[in-house]
Amino acid sequence: VSLEDLRINADRLNQSLAEMATIGATSAGGVTRLALSDEDRQARQLLIRWLVEIDLQTHVDDVGNMWAVRPGTSTADPVMLGSHLDTVIQGGRYDGALGVLGALEVLRTLHEHNIITDKPIGLVNWTNEEGVRFEPAMTCSGVVTGAFTAEYVHERHDRSGARFGDELTAIGFAGNADERPKPGAYLELHIEQGPVLESIDLPVGMVEGIVGITWCDVTIVGQPDHAGPSPMHLRHDPLMAAAEIILEVERIALHRDDTAVATVGRINVEANVINTIPGIVRFSVDFRHRDPAVLDDQVELLRRAAGGITERRGATCIIDRFWTSAPTPFDPEVLSEVSSAIAALGLPEHRLWSGAGHDARYLADICPSAMIFVRSRAGLSHCEAEFSAQEDIAAGANTLLQTALRLATN
Amino acid sequence: VSLEDLRINADRLNQSLAEMATIGATSAGGVTRLALSDEDRQARQLLIRWLVEIDLQTHVDDVGNMWAVRPGTSTADPVMLGSHLDTVIQGGRYDGALGVLGALEVLRTLHEHNIITDKPIGLVNWTNEEGVRFEPAMTCSGVVTGAFTAEYVHERHDRSGARFGDELTAIGFAGNADERPKPGAYLELHIEQGPVLESIDLPVGMVEGIVGITWCDVTIVGQPDHAGPSPMHLRHDPLMAAAEIILEVERIALHRDDTAVATVGRINVEANVINTIPGIVRFSVDFRHRDPAVLDDQVELLRRAAGGITERRGATCIIDRFWTSAPTPFDPEVLSEVSSAIAALGLPEHRLWSGAGHDARYLADICPSAMIFVRSRAGLSHCEAEFSAQEDIAAGANTLLQTALRLATN
Repeated sequence: VSLEDLRINADRLNQSLAEMATIGATSAGGVTRLALSDEDRQARQLLIRWLVEIDLQTHVDDVGNMWAVRPGTSTADPVMLGSHLDTVIQGGRYDGALGVLGALEVLRTLHEHNIITDKPIGLVNWTNEEGVRFEPAMTCSGVVTGAFTAEYVHERHDRSGARFGDELTAIGFAGNADERPKPGAYLELHIEQGPVLESIDLPVGMVEGIVGITWCDVTIVGQPDHAGPSPMHLRHDPLMAAAEIILEVERIALHRDDTAVATVGRINVEANVINTIPGIVRFSVDFRHRDPAVLDDQVELLRRAAGGITERRGATCIIDRFWTSAPTPFDPEVLSEVSSAIAALGLPEHRLWSGAGHDARYLADICPSAMIFVRSRAGLSHCEAEFSAQEDIAAGANTLLQTALRLATN
Repeated sequence: VSLEDLRINADRLNQSLAEMATIGATSAGGVTRLALSDEDRQARQLLIRWLVEIDLQTHVDDVGNMWAVRPGTSTADPVMLGSHLDTVIQGGRYDGALGVLGALEVLRTLHEHNIITDKPIGLVNWTNEEGVRFEPAMTCSGVVTGAFTAEYVHERHDRSGARFGDELTAIGFAGNADERPKPGAYLELHIEQGPVLESIDLPVGMVEGIVGITWCDVTIVGQPDHAGPSPMHLRHDPLMAAAEIILEVERIALHRDDTAVATVGRINVEANVINTIPGIVRFSVDFRHRDPAVLDDQVELLRRAAGGITERRGATCIIDRFWTSAPTPFDPEVLSEVSSAIAALGLPEHRLWSGAGHDARYLADICPSAMIFVRSRAGLSHCEAEFSAQEDIAAGANTLLQTALRLATN
């Protein structure tokens, strides 16, 4: 079989996904497999067993990241494929697992056909991507790229007080930083976790980058008062101001372009009582865009709108832009290989940006990187109803295979 | 002195208000005197002592309401003046106490001048008006008018599990239902608890009635999702729908007339997390108006607006109108005497409706009733900053005196 015609085994991949999903399986068909839990240990041991079956040895670094590299004819830095095996609480079967087992399926396919690539191709399973048990998220890909130190990560504690470093040792996955290969390129296959591919009826998407995110806390102080004795024209109601500003947040995103998103996810009101005009309203604003200048502009538009609205209502407004994550555009040459792979598979190409963070965000800092998205049913993820169809998974894994083969060619 | 020229002693009234405010005094100048607490007991005992000083005996009924009646030449049903001595937590010195001590000052003034009215004039201190310790509010004026049974009130429990009936006995104020006189008329002096009199620079207002109130719970169900991967045009965000509906609530009141008020005091969002589009938003709506048909109409306008907004956004909306209190117009003849009293005092007349409930709301069911409001600084009440000026208090108490004298004339 020519490399161009090489395809993964969709049944085998889906069988492995199903087997992996039994570890931490929930009664409603989802998975709870928190980082460094006993379920995480079992998942890691299953992965090691599968890698042994294709003659690959697993290496573990000082934060538990797992690596296996299939040698090529050259000693170039390996093309690494991967994602994570941890999940959120009552999460799904595909988020993370698809990227790791998709990488495994690529290696199995190469093994089965005795293909020796020019450059080595490897698999990586990142520890604690979700950040649900140990905050923040993506800690261990962050260690590899220097965003965090291993010591910082070891000192994270979960809500019950358990320490990351101790839990890592307890499950037997405290390795050595020397075991970490230097990636020559990085590819991550992942479910979309959004509704775009479904809305345009496509199985896979080519991810051009990860959007920038900026978070603001908005605090509006008005005049608390009884609901009854305060005529409308004498009120300084911060919730009415908040309602106007929240709609303005939506307008700011809608008026920019199709890719801008803005969300108010959290709102808290004092006193939060049926017959009292609130005195203080606090809410969050989450702006996301691929262009950092647009993020700045959107915060400025928010400030201007909120200032005008609160002034008119005799309230005051404080906007605290407390966190920003810069956009991460992926590597044009890797994207060009993804594009060729999609074309070679006869699939329509659709480019999109990831609205959520992934390990690839950190990897892009140290090597040419990109991601491939697989359609998510109803855009759902981080829930038991998360689902991607076998054909879509096959299309995604074949795109991963074909891109990896291209990147591994001298 | 002719009855027309009779005036209360403003210094004495304010001194009594100050002395009463020492019982349950907070460090910031307010009062915490919860119903049936030891502070309530001390306040009641002080009131008894003051009544004894003017040769009046206090009677206590089966829910702790306190009565004292100054005989007239006739045996007609007495003109009762009163309010309540309980407060909210960290409340003010005037809410309730002004009505009881204003009544005391009227009786002191009559005593001092040896005036014998035609009809008897009495004082009443209602138990548990605030409803902060034992819900609901105004339980004990409600017993007098048949809105609640004494048994129902005795079985109320506070948050610590203490039973109303037991606490009433513990403070020594469990009396007898037979001790209750039948009021021939009822007048309540109270702080406005709103900003209207201050905004038009008047010391007192004539209260024509208590507005009707209707309460709705609005539940909007949308599509919860990650803030990142969901394009704006594919969202079904219930908080954006809620923001539109909340502004519509304001418009519904503004477009009606100057007296209509509408408040959203409570809002809760699920999951209430910065990077998640909410799935469910619940909020309260409080409509108040003197005309019950207007309340019905406003709920209908809310239903229509909310239906259209949620349908357009692909969300669903449930509106539960779960409680309504009918408007209570006060007695035209009593109001006419209030009006004459205000004119006799050389004060400008301003008519307004009470936006909040008071014991007079129940009394109006069994006898001709009305209220007199005293200007509240900044409209504040139920807080330590609650304040009414001595001159305004004097104007209010003189209005109470002059109205009582007119009502007590055969």
